[in-house]
Parts: sequence; structure tokens; C-alpha cells
Amino acid sequence: MSDVDKVIAAVSEERLWQRVLTMAAFGGTAKGGVNRQAASAEDAAAQNQLMAWGAARGFASFRDEIGNLFIRRDGEDATAAPIVIGSHLDSQPTGGKFDGAYGVLAAFEVLEAIADAGIATQRPIEVVSWTNEEGSRFTPGAMGSGVFAGSYRLDTTLETKDRSGLKLGDELAQVAVRAPAPFRAMADMRPAAYLEAHIEQGPLLEAAGIPIGIVGGIQGIRRFSVDLTGEEAHAGTTPRRLRKDALVAAIDAITTLNREADAVGEALRFTVGTFAVSPSSPNTVPGAVRFSIDLRHPDDATLSAFDQTIGATVEAVARAHGCPGRVERISRVLPTTFDPRVIALLRESAALLQYQYLELMSGAGHDAMHLAKICPAAMVFIPCLKGISHNEGESATAGDVVAGARVLAVATTRLTAR
Amino acid sequence: MSDVDKVIAAVSEERLWQRVLTMAAFGGTAKGGVNRQAASAEDAAAQNQLMAWGAARGFASFRDEIGNLFIRRDGEDATAAPIVIGSHLDSQPTGGKFDGAYGVLAAFEVLEAIADAGIATQRPIEVVSWTNEEGSRFTPGAMGSGVFAGSYRLDTTLETKDRSGLKLGDELAQVAVRAPAPFRAMADMRPAAYLEAHIEQGPLLEAAGIPIGIVGGIQGIRRFSVDLTGEEAHAGTTPRRLRKDALVAAIDAITTLNREADAVGEALRFTVGTFAVSPSSPNTVPGAVRFSIDLRHPDDATLSAFDQTIGATVEAVARAHGCPGRVERISRVLPTTFDPRVIALLRESAALLQYQYLELMSGAGHDAMHLAKICPAAMVFIPCLKGISHNEGESATAGDVVAGARVLAVATTRLTAR
Repeated sequence: MSDVDKVIAAVSEERLWQRVLTMAAFGGTAKGGVNRQAASAEDAAAQNQLMAWGAARGFASFRDEIGNLFIRRDGEDATAAPIVIGSHLDSQPTGGKFDGAYGVLAAFEVLEAIADAGIATQRPIEVVSWTNEEGSRFTPGAMGSGVFAGSYRLDTTLETKDRSGLKLGDELAQVAVRAPAPFRAMADMRPAAYLEAHIEQGPLLEAAGIPIGIVGGIQGIRRFSVDLTGEEAHAGTTPRRLRKDALVAAIDAITTLNREADAVGEALRFTVGTFAVSPSSPNTVPGAVRFSIDLRHPDDATLSAFDQTIGATVEAVARAHGCPGRVERISRVLPTTFDPRVIALLRESAALLQYQYLELMSGAGHDAMHLAKICPAAMVFIPCLKGISHNEGESATAGDVVAGARVLAVATTRLTAR
Repeated sequence: MSDVDKVIAAVSEERLWQRVLTMAAFGGTAKGGVNRQAASAEDAAAQNQLMAWGAARGFASFRDEIGNLFIRRDGEDATAAPIVIGSHLDSQPTGGKFDGAYGVLAAFEVLEAIADAGIATQRPIEVVSWTNEEGSRFTPGAMGSGVFAGSYRLDTTLETKDRSGLKLGDELAQVAVRAPAPFRAMADMRPAAYLEAHIEQGPLLEAAGIPIGIVGGIQGIRRFSVDLTGEEAHAGTTPRRLRKDALVAAIDAITTLNREADAVGEALRFTVGTFAVSPSSPNTVPGAVRFSIDLRHPDDATLSAFDQTIGATVEAVARAHGCPGRVERISRVLPTTFDPRVIALLRESAALLQYQYLELMSGAGHDAMHLAKICPAAMVFIPCLKGISHNEGESATAGDVVAGARVLAVATTRLTAR
């Protein structure tokens, strides 16, 4: 029996599923979801649980300057760069059991399965839980991995405040008190490779009836805020032709942009998620509207082209309605392309396990997008019910959960030997 | 000198203009407008000021079950039904100095001028400020006059909640604490006649260069609340064709209704003034939208026909987008025709004063529409800058302001003798 076969045999569906349920109790909600926001008491309790499981197997734990937590199984070559696998334990305020936690627990299952199989890997393996992936308490998300990979500065990131004015740095100090772990400077560890398992958070795998998604990369994301300014007027006395109705102008712009987005094709994700009217009175013609645009595509050039379409459309609508318009680009995240060799390894792993797989792009951002800047990285997706995520009703099957862990186990075992 | 001539001579442009400016300080905004929403602390402060001016002249104050405030000057016949004159002190969230407040202060100027002229009228005269005419905080508007005239039920109206869940009844109790006034049951006073002065809130008088509008009636008004329910989804992972985007459905419905409204012609006033998205997150496809429709026309049959158009459009859009829709008719106010004898009296009053006047219909609803159901009633309009109203830039000239008050003074003096 090869090492890989031993590891596959050692991956336990029962153990992994129980760990998912146990972890879901930290911040568990009445509706079956999870409220375990970054650097909260619940987050600390979840980290303590993970470290306790690790300690029971003799694995060491470390925490770095931004609160990222690592559980390490040593390799034969103590000086070799580790294979890092994991995701995040923090959740949305009304999040589910699987987003993030699944990737950490699948990684921990890999660590245990390799230990159970009695395999001495060449490289060390580390399971990671990155700080504040969700970005709902502290903005932006994927903060821990972003600082680790050098995308964000440590000092300014620690100063970030939540809505009630609490500083991330102070809250992380509380986590260190509640869930103590030895400090290890982030400079002291560079991954040899990074793998992350996650629920798809989209409908494609479930619709296709396929258990494994191999992720080619992460869409680029641009966020915009659009303002249109008209003139408030009395709804009863002002003939429609004399109005400068900001709402009428805004829906004209959005209608045009919806049509343009559909023309680009399905890979373009165009969403207006917020739409605020001022003064928001039933009998006043709206004097101002502000709406958001969330725009995603795997190709940055396509995003740039649509960026221009947004500007041109708002300008044309503003002129036609006599309502001055302004488009502000709030953020721009470049698309991520994962490492072709790691992707090939994931294909081989799924094939070895005789799992059907779909190659897809991630519509959501993940910690892997930062890690891909500093080491070969890729991701494995599993289906989730109706593609629903960031929702207490988030759900996945035990069969899919263990399938993803097995693909991760095979790929990790092979990576440690390289 | 006749009584009417004495009253005309006693109407003071300077005093009335100063009172307009003083009143505008309650809820005054940086842009020179007013935010004095119904039953707010600012509304209470404005009522206190009015009562203080009344008390200084020996006029009694009363407040009824729905918070309408009356300032009374007794007549020779203590048992006679009073002539009631006034308007409202509440404003839109970004309202102006004149909408409502002008009618109350012009009425108060009439009361003072009659007192200054030393005239003992036969009937009592009461200046009124009706509760929540604007309808922007609590829906529908013209609530105080509506309950007073029996158009709305007192008990259910007091249960009305604002957006933050505060009940009108509780908020009126706060006003009574902040601006105490003796209680008088509404059943204990029936007006002999009602007159209301107001800015036109439309462009006709200013365009014609005419200072006085004599109002023949008020358009019918219907208010609707429309809900469309889609499905929340992740903006990055859900292809557009798989979404049930409530915002996309809503703007489709509004676009169709705008086109249908324009086809009916300029006399139809169709306005979407509020538009609320849930959950209102930039990266979540909207799961629900609620928007308001304000619909006005002088002919009730035209309103009924468009009422059906709204229902059919929302149904068709709901089906096309897979987003169940619901249209609720919040209120229906029939077109109002004012009393021909009171209109004739206003014509005579303007003629006596040698003011040019225009006879017109009101595009806006006013408290007078409810009063017209229970007593002879009519209205006087004065021009406002560019017809702009429900706007912090609302403006009127001191000359027009006092002209309207003089017409009101002559008509009121004559009515008390009848």
C-alpha cells in the first residue's frame, strides 16, 4: 500500500463530520447558523478547540502578529518550508457552519489522517486559520492572509476599528488571553505551497451533480458607488416633464447597465446591491440616489472595459435626465490565477480518487488570493445546498465534505515529497 | 372706517414675516430649510412658540385626541361654531420655511389683526395646526384633519408607526409633555367654515405674475406600497440568469409604469419617492425591495384605471422575474371640490384688495380636503419661487406672504358675521 493509499484510507468521514458539528457550536445560532465574528470571544473559543485537538495529537500551535493560528506537524526535514493548508474560523454575523470552518477542519483531518497512517513526510505540514477573512466586523476581509502575504501593512491593519470603535489590535490581544498560543513571527515561516478547501458558495457543482471543483483562480472585483443628483419637487404639483427625478435617472442607468452586462456574457457578475433614495418621502420627487455596483470577472481587461461602460452610461443618463452623475471606484482587486502545477496535482488527486470534477473560477474572494502572491497555491471546492452561503441555512453533505478532504489529503501528501 | 378696512390696515407685513423667520428656526437646517417632522421635539417646540404668541394676546389653546392644536379668540356668541383658519406646522425631512407654517402664521396674523383692530366678531375664530399633514414620518399625510373630519379612525391612526417603530400615539404623548395644552375633545367643536392659506407648491402663479390663487379643488390621491420578493444570493458566485434579483424586478416594474403614466398625459402625477432594498449589502443580490407610489389626478375614474395598470404591471413583472409581488393600496383620497360660496367670498375679498387672482386646482393634498367634508371650505394660494416645495430652497416674497394673509383676513372677518 502506497503512502497516498494509506492516507486515503485514514481519512475519516465520521470524525470530520463530528468536528464540523462541534465547531459549529462556537457562536451557534438558534437558526442553525453561526455568529463567530473575527477576534470575538466565540472566535477565541473555536481556536482553543482546534489547538486542543492538535495538542491531543502532539501537534504544536503558533500564532503570529496578526493573529493567524498555525497547527504544525513536523517533517523529516525540520528546516524545509512547510505545506500550508487551511482557511478561516471567523464567520459572517448570520453565517453558516461551513464557510471557512470546513477548510480548516478538512485540513486538520488531513493532518490526522497522515499521522494515523504513520507517514513521516519530508516537509512539515501546517494547518492555518487566517484572521478575519469575512471582513464583516473589520474591513477589508482576508486581512490575516493579506498581512501575512505582504498585501497589507501590519501596523495600520492592527489599528482598524469595528463599528463600535474597538481596535483589531486590542481585540486580538484579548483572543491571545482567551486562547493562548506561542508566538511565532510571520517572517519566520514561508509556505512551500498553499491549498485551501471551501464550499463553492455558488450553484454550479450542485447543479451539475459533481462533488469536486478545481479552482483555476479568483475573479477580479471592482466596487463602485454611483451618485445621481436631481431636484426635489412636490409629487403632486410638478408635471413629470418638469422634474429632475434622480430615481428615474438611476433606474434608467441600471437598466442600461443590466443589458450591457448580459451582453458581455455569464462570466461577468454585475450586481446593484444597495440603492438609497433621498429624501425618501412618498410624496417628494427624489432629489438624489446613491447605488453600489459590484463587478466581477476572471479577466481584468474585461473589467476595465466595463468600468468604462459604467462611466459612459452614467454620463449619458445624467445628460438625458438633467441629473449630474458621479461614479467613484471604491476598490479594485485584480484577478488571481492559481499555480498550474498545483492545479494539475489537484486534477491527478481527484482522478486517483475517481471523483468527477469541474474546473471553475471562484466568484468570491478567499485567503488563497493573497497566498498565491508568495507561493504556489490553489483551491478545492465542494458543493453547498443551492449555492447558498453567508446565510444561516448554509448546508453541505457529509459525503461531499469528506470527498473534498480526501482530494486535499492526496495533494498534500504528494506536495510534502517534492 | 368699516371693520374690514380696519382689519386690512392692521395686518402687518413686518410682524408676519418675522414670525415666518422665527418659526423656521425650529428644526432649521444648514441649507436654510426646515426638518420639523410630525410629533418630533422640533414640532413640539414650534407648537410651544405658537401658544406663547397666543397667550401673550390672551388667546386660549386646546389640543385634541390626535394632537391638533387650536388657538382661540372668543366671539360675542360663545356658543356659535367657530370660523377655523390654519394649516400645519410639521414639515418634510428636507422641507422649506413656508409649506404649512405659512398657513398657520397667516391665520395667526389674521387673529392678531382682528384683535388689534378691536373688533368683536360674532363667531369665535380658531387658528389650527393640524397633526402630520406631510405624511413623511407617519403615513398617510393629513392625518390630524382626516381624523378630525371622520375620514380616518382615531384608534388605528394612533397605532401608526414610523420607520424606527415608534408609535404616533406615544410620540404625541411626548409632544403633550413638551408643549402642554388643555385637552378639548374633537367632538366638542365643529367649524362653521374652514379657510387655509398655502404656498402654491407649483409653478403657475409665479409664471403668470399673479399674487393670489383661488383654489377650486384638490386632485384625488392614491398611495401604494409595492413589495417584490426575490432570493438573496452571493454577488460573486451566482450567474445573473440564476438570480431572482428583487431590485432588477422592481426597476423593470417602475420603468413600465413611468411609460404608462406618460401615456396618460401631464395631468397624471406618478411618483416613486421611496425605494428600500434588503439586505442592502453591496455583495448580496437583493432579496426584497419595497417602493412607494404616489398617484394623483383631478378625475377619480382616471385614478381607478391606473390603479389597475399598477396591479397588472407588478403581476407581469413578478411572473417574468420569478419574484412574487404584492401591491397594497395605502390610501385613497377622492378629488375634492371646494364650496362655491366660500370661493365666491375669496374672489370678492381679492377684488376688494385689488389683487389679481388666478383660479386653479391644487396638485397637492391639503388638510382642507378633509375639512371640506364637514363644513364649507376653500383655500388661498400664494406664489413660491419656481414652484419648488418639499425642498430646503423653498422661497416666497414678503409681499406675496402678506397679500395672502390680507385675503384671508377679509374673508374671515366677513365669515364671522354670517
